[in-house]
Amino acid sequence: MRQDMNQLARKIQDEVCAAVQDLDSGQFDVHTWERPGGGGGESRVLQDSDVFEKAGVNVSAVHGTLSEEAMQAMRQRRGPVADPSFFATGVSLVLHPRNPFCPTVHANFRFFDLANGQHWWFGGGADLTPAYLFEEDARHFHATLKGACDDHSPEYYPKFKAWCDSYFRIEHRGECRGIGGIFFDDLDQPSMQACFSFVSQVADAFVPAYFPIARRRVTQPYESSHKAWQEIRRGRYVEFNLVYDRGTTFGLKTNARTESVLMSLPLHARWVSNHSVDPESEEARLLDVLRNPRDWAS
Amino acid sequence: MRQDMNQLARKIQDEVCAAVQDLDSGQFDVHTWERPGGGGGESRVLQDSDVFEKAGVNVSAVHGTLSEEAMQAMRQRRGPVADPSFFATGVSLVLHPRNPFCPTVHANFRFFDLANGQHWWFGGGADLTPAYLFEEDARHFHATLKGACDDHSPEYYPKFKAWCDSYFRIEHRGECRGIGGIFFDDLDQPSMQACFSFVSQVADAFVPAYFPIARRRVTQPYESSHKAWQEIRRGRYVEFNLVYDRGTTFGLKTNARTESVLMSLPLHARWVSNHSVDPESEEARLLDVLRNPRDWAS
Repeated sequence: MRQDMNQLARKIQDEVCAAVQDLDSGQFDVHTWERPGGGGGESRVLQDSDVFEKAGVNVSAVHGTLSEEAMQAMRQRRGPVADPSFFATGVSLVLHPRNPFCPTVHANFRFFDLANGQHWWFGGGADLTPAYLFEEDARHFHATLKGACDDHSPEYYPKFKAWCDSYFRIEHRGECRGIGGIFFDDLDQPSMQACFSFVSQVADAFVPAYFPIARRRVTQPYESSHKAWQEIRRGRYVEFNLVYDRGTTFGLKTNARTESVLMSLPLHARWVSNHSVDPESEEARLLDVLRNPRDWAS
Repeated sequence: MRQDMNQLARKIQDEVCAAVQDLDSGQFDVHTWERPGGGGGESRVLQDSDVFEKAGVNVSAVHGTLSEEAMQAMRQRRGPVADPSFFATGVSLVLHPRNPFCPTVHANFRFFDLANGQHWWFGGGADLTPAYLFEEDARHFHATLKGACDDHSPEYYPKFKAWCDSYFRIEHRGECRGIGGIFFDDLDQPSMQACFSFVSQVADAFVPAYFPIARRRVTQPYESSHKAWQEIRRGRYVEFNLVYDRGTTFGLKTNARTESVLMSLPLHARWVSNHSVDPESEEARLLDVLRNPRDWAS
């Protein structure tokens, strides 16, 4: 499974980078890195380019020994743990397009093995963060992910959709980060092979879920006011990632590679104090769905 | 003391706003707000103006009952606490100039009273965050604060300078946020009146510490590359405030007014992945002092 999941992560990395380069004339910078405690990864970043302000696609496969603090957290989460050896592999990506009508997207698929197979689980998901709401985009993104979920269990999509809405919540703003998607963690039922099959199918659904949206939005004309609102929303993205996101906050407080952890941050962000929007505006329509998550695939 | 400190906070607010408006043709937006649990404040913000991208100067005087969680933290910090009633008042300000050669500055002066006078203390400080290092600016800022400290105790400046360097540290970057200043907390010796006298003098030193620097830098010509580096440094400012700053993280996780808590964030910030600087450049000179805090007033 370690090898199968690592191959899946590399395949998704290749596919997403190819789909980005189909739209964008820029090139990815590739950094391979090694983790002092064991393992390593490959980060690919394209930034300040014609279509994408930032596109980061990372794979990693790391192994080693958990700290006592991490072991305590694992015991709370999983019960007794025989030993602190771990292995983790996955792919994680964030795409921030230049065009304010084209949504930001994030996805992550990972496999974790603890104490040489005593505990194992999959986690991941994909979620969409538009600055302007196009209902057809939201419906297409959710329906594509739901299709992949439904082939495995009718319970997956409703459960993972709700989990996504509650995870990507900027509590101090009373808003979700975006219009959601799916989020799952600790997936270890009904079998390792069935979980991998589900994760593979959802991961394969990412390109068809996002890129048809990107293709129709990246050429849409926009004005500087749209760009300003996009940068304000990117400020909220930064707030979520630095204040709430477990991967980011955990990564910063351990010995993770800072550049990989913070690759998710946008090229440009803006904070306007006491910002308000016209209640009849497109900006207000977006805020309404961020404050009141909607069903997009029922 | 509650009234004296509130008057000091309001005087500093008026003086700093007047000094900002001496340089900038814009106007402050004034928001008064009430805290549901008791008290309130006045926020003044000037943004996207000719000299300052953002200038926020807040005063507040709040009172009420601490949560059980906050009480536990107070007991760890102060010993037994008779009851959860509290009063807090102070001034807090952040100035982000447009010109990349003019440093960002932050200051805060506050008085806290717990259990109706059973515990009381002062806290605060002022620190400078340049994007480009001008040694004369760093020396002037530190020397002015040191002068105010030295009139009260020869131990204050060395202790509060070191505390500032260790507090405003972005651990995951291995950098300080800026070139420091002073930071103090839990100040309750030798007497309430002596503490207030010290805090008053340091607060009065803020305008002469910062504005002579601002006046000589805001007219200095710059290029877009300097502006880009300033925005990258402002991204680091955001990282510090959202990940480490106790006032911010505590404010966001309690019922504080989000707009006041996040008023410190810059109008524009930028995150460039894998950014590097020429070792012989001005940008590298700044990084060197952020990584290795220097004495500026000895």
